[in-house]
Amino acid sequence: VNVGELSLAVVGTGLMGGSVGLAAKRAGVRRVTGFDVDEDALALAVERGAVDLPAASLAEAVAGADLVVIATPVGSIAARASEALAGGPSCTVTDVGSTKAGICSALRGEGRFLGGHPLCGSELRGPGRAEADLFAGCTWFLAPLPGTDPGSTRLVRGFVEAVGAEPIAIAPEAHDELVALTSHLPHALANLLVDQAGATRVAGVDTSAGAGGSFRDLTRVAGANPPVWADILLENAEAVVAALAEHRRLTEELEELLRRGDVEQVTSWIERAARSRRRLAGD
Amino acid sequence: VNVGELSLAVVGTGLMGGSVGLAAKRAGVRRVTGFDVDEDALALAVERGAVDLPAASLAEAVAGADLVVIATPVGSIAARASEALAGGPSCTVTDVGSTKAGICSALRGEGRFLGGHPLCGSELRGPGRAEADLFAGCTWFLAPLPGTDPGSTRLVRGFVEAVGAEPIAIAPEAHDELVALTSHLPHALANLLVDQAGATRVAGVDTSAGAGGSFRDLTRVAGANPPVWADILLENAEAVVAALAEHRRLTEELEELLRRGDVEQVTSWIERAARSRRRLAGD
Repeated sequence: VNVGELSLAVVGTGLMGGSVGLAAKRAGVRRVTGFDVDEDALALAVERGAVDLPAASLAEAVAGADLVVIATPVGSIAARASEALAGGPSCTVTDVGSTKAGICSALRGEGRFLGGHPLCGSELRGPGRAEADLFAGCTWFLAPLPGTDPGSTRLVRGFVEAVGAEPIAIAPEAHDELVALTSHLPHALANLLVDQAGATRVAGVDTSAGAGGSFRDLTRVAGANPPVWADILLENAEAVVAALAEHRRLTEELEELLRRGDVEQVTSWIERAARSRRRLAGD
Repeated sequence: VNVGELSLAVVGTGLMGGSVGLAAKRAGVRRVTGFDVDEDALALAVERGAVDLPAASLAEAVAGADLVVIATPVGSIAARASEALAGGPSCTVTDVGSTKAGICSALRGEGRFLGGHPLCGSELRGPGRAEADLFAGCTWFLAPLPGTDPGSTRLVRGFVEAVGAEPIAIAPEAHDELVALTSHLPHALANLLVDQAGATRVAGVDTSAGAGGSFRDLTRVAGANPPVWADILLENAEAVVAALAEHRRLTEELEELLRRGDVEQVTSWIERAARSRRRLAGD
């Protein structure tokens, strides 16, 4: 993939779309066109240098593009991708949505579409917080289907590598099951914890007095982007509900260990967590 | 309280005890004696400058002390505090344990004992990681009882302020209920999450590929100090089990919202979390 000859269109120029534009510019793409239904977001993306040419419509943005990145909320990605495929008859279309099964299923048979998901979540939002190095070193899931054009897959992989991310191929359903566990469950637990702490009154002392380092860590992502995250959790509801139910089962097991006062078992449970942490998120 | 005239004894010279020694030295105390059953930990605390005079026994360490800080694992604090009260007939004794009800109840009637808990948790351990500024700006809970000598309370409060922490008075039971929610529940959720992610296999992709920012945040404290944390969770088992059971109830409510596909309610649930987060841990 010769990135220098690439004409890119970004649809949805918020934090993710804006960062895609900035990262693409830094990687040397020929030009970036952009469209957002929110005129202010589009103007700010232009001001930040994430978009060279603002377009008045999605069709205008994708007209001359080789690659289109859809960076709108998950609920509207499939529809915007269909419009992009219709509007740019030779372009490849990908997205950066946090779920994949529903989107890829809606676009099954579209050889020029390839679902994607860069794992660089941020609790921030808007093009003002976009960063050219948001994707540096992070996993970027790609979900090619049997019917996906090999040329489109190569193009998207090349682009992902050009912005510094590591492309990892995954089936859409496996992707959603995986992120239910590693991203959606953590977000849900953060919200649940802060909600419980906020609703509880302990005699004489405000709960905030007890909010130390572990509470801050566990709740950093709590309350992030309510409409965006409501969409994500609902789009992946089946896998998230399954992860939450399994979490409740494990929680009940822990309660039983604590009730029994089983110091050996509680200790080995924490030791097992230490090993898993090193393996999964060693840092 | 004239800190410069204070002779301090630290019993248990790990991360917490070592940091108490370093912070006390920086605050200008006259001298710090120290004892630890682990000779290496004591030698390292001396090397780090956290302890001036290493003692061969708890009795030797507390003999000439005005203030004794017990910084051993929670399970042994009450016994070590009793020995200190017996060994230093005029000293005030406090502790830095993460739970208070059991310890304060065991020492009820001891006018020179006052339970304490600095909220500066760290996943680190050992005197090698001790820091003089570990307590700067953090909450330090103190649990005086009706029978506590006012002079002892004044001494401990003055010491806490001298090392830069903010003393907050709280009843032992309220303390344990509060930290069950703001510290023990977060630790338990971190361990539960990493345990679940470690045990789950998603077709074709290692779970670690999905471990992004939110997973790292949520699991930073997972696996911390297994024997120490097993002690803490078990010492506060009743309040922790109650917090976990309430957490399960809230989790089940969320599953129901997600199953119903109720986007408005899921959005307001996240908005409520955002408000609680700002109130409890605004940063």
